[in-house]
Amino acid sequence: MKKLINHPSDVVLEMVQGIVAAYPNEVELLPDTTVIVRKQKTNGKVGIVSGGGSGHEPAHAGYVGKGMLDAAVAGEAFTSPGPDQVLEAIKAADSGAGVLLVIKNYSGDVMNFEMAAELAEAEGITVEKVIVNDDVAVEDSTYTTGRRGIAGTIFVHKIAGALAETGASLQEVHAAAEKVVQQVRSMGMALSPCIVPGNGKPSFVLGDNEMEMGMGIHGEPGLEREELKSADEVAEKLLQPILEEGVFKTGDHVAVMVNGLGATPLMELYIVNRKIQELLKEKGLHMTKTYVGNYMTAFEMAGCSLTLLRLDDQLYELLQAPCDAPGF
Amino acid sequence: MKKLINHPSDVVLEMVQGIVAAYPNEVELLPDTTVIVRKQKTNGKVGIVSGGGSGHEPAHAGYVGKGMLDAAVAGEAFTSPGPDQVLEAIKAADSGAGVLLVIKNYSGDVMNFEMAAELAEAEGITVEKVIVNDDVAVEDSTYTTGRRGIAGTIFVHKIAGALAETGASLQEVHAAAEKVVQQVRSMGMALSPCIVPGNGKPSFVLGDNEMEMGMGIHGEPGLEREELKSADEVAEKLLQPILEEGVFKTGDHVAVMVNGLGATPLMELYIVNRKIQELLKEKGLHMTKTYVGNYMTAFEMAGCSLTLLRLDDQLYELLQAPCDAPGF
Repeated sequence: MKKLINHPSDVVLEMVQGIVAAYPNEVELLPDTTVIVRKQKTNGKVGIVSGGGSGHEPAHAGYVGKGMLDAAVAGEAFTSPGPDQVLEAIKAADSGAGVLLVIKNYSGDVMNFEMAAELAEAEGITVEKVIVNDDVAVEDSTYTTGRRGIAGTIFVHKIAGALAETGASLQEVHAAAEKVVQQVRSMGMALSPCIVPGNGKPSFVLGDNEMEMGMGIHGEPGLEREELKSADEVAEKLLQPILEEGVFKTGDHVAVMVNGLGATPLMELYIVNRKIQELLKEKGLHMTKTYVGNYMTAFEMAGCSLTLLRLDDQLYELLQAPCDAPGF
Repeated sequence: MKKLINHPSDVVLEMVQGIVAAYPNEVELLPDTTVIVRKQKTNGKVGIVSGGGSGHEPAHAGYVGKGMLDAAVAGEAFTSPGPDQVLEAIKAADSGAGVLLVIKNYSGDVMNFEMAAELAEAEGITVEKVIVNDDVAVEDSTYTTGRRGIAGTIFVHKIAGALAETGASLQEVHAAAEKVVQQVRSMGMALSPCIVPGNGKPSFVLGDNEMEMGMGIHGEPGLEREELKSADEVAEKLLQPILEEGVFKTGDHVAVMVNGLGATPLMELYIVNRKIQELLKEKGLHMTKTYVGNYMTAFEMAGCSLTLLRLDDQLYELLQAPCDAPGF
């Protein structure tokens, strides 16, 4: 697979440099790191930090901005960033009110972010964390104990970020983020693999007429590999396991995200969304806000994921709050 | 190539239905058409209408919203919409102050939009038009006499849309749109083809180590097919012919768009942007606003385009003005 890169070993650094070059008034790179931080700091605001392996753009650097993240740590491709980089992000994001870490549930991320939290606490910074595990597909996957964190993470960023902007305390921001984690569920599927730069080999192989339901955003195994279905059938297969969770009840208001994994045209995502919305109506769920686009990708993987978030008044208001992050 | 669709003949209708399902409070579908219009009309505002063949999403339906388009006409895949549909869009967008048509320079679009304009004039609606021909790659291509219109079109939408929102006259909006056309230039390149739904065959074939500079957004021939280069070299090859136009001079302020064609990861677009910004600085051009993302795609084609717009105070202010369109 052909890539517009220079050298595989430089992709992450050059990417974050390219982000800063695009938004030089809004964000900057911490020296000697791949940590993107907001240029304007609000004193006394809770800091929101996230990050993880690269290859999921715009996650996470694209979500740094007013109303969302204060700092994002970019690890190597599909590889958790080390605790030293996360620590730098925490220090940069802290302005006296403490920092919330938003961690996707992969063993490497959890370990490194928790280690960084301990180091930061030792330096006198109060740190709280949420671990996002919205993917209903599988338990205990290649890189995970428990469930994986995927596109639902972006709702955590948005809601925690919006609440922090109001001057809420770390405890309040943490509680809202935890509520999102409790009320968000996702399910993904893939049509074709991606290639990690420098690796050269596809992350997995699917037949010409195959798809995989429940595949992870690093190509981790899903639920079943099966014959390619129509968009409407895929929509049903994505929604069903989410609804079986018991989180969403008739009459609930929900936010919907139909997320592309990188190479799937927006046209197809809209066609999937069409059926999702029809099914939600049938189930008596009220769609209050919908997002269709590439929010949590896997390089040039083709496929999509569906995320549902149960809303109450607080979450709805925070979701609607203004946000300057370029990726949202 | 696998697609998340139902039946190839339904993709455009189901896509626009999926868009309305995503943003039901903001947009609606005109009955028996594939025309997306704003739900809230501002009386006495100049209407802005665009459109063209589908497959370029979020162009154009994703640009319908306050501060941008009033109506977008979605033709079949890579096929101009007929004059009857364009006429319906014009009638819906008119609220007494006339309508500006933003047309990409493809023979089918020009013919059908001009025919619709005549029909609308016959019904008493004042219509002006701009034809966008920003692609510097080639003259007289497969579907075009003169130069093709590509991602620069989005700057025309944004600026005309923002000016119309201020209550400016059709003459003023037309003049600003023409100014953008005069001052915007683009150049694209492709790494891999797309497949039009129902066609089944790739739009062109490139070798494993080949790229094509100057390729059009429907796979029209470019300048040269050559060995795949690094991202930095590609950035130079995109920028050089744009600068040779003589439109951009040392000290000018410019808006930059690094646009993905569909399947190219955002990571790669940022890496290309990094070099573009470096080169712009070397040339003494001031980057005032940058956009990196998928703005004018070609289904799942891999590759990118670069667009530069020379800014003056008016264009800068209009570019910065608020905009609710989901695709921008």
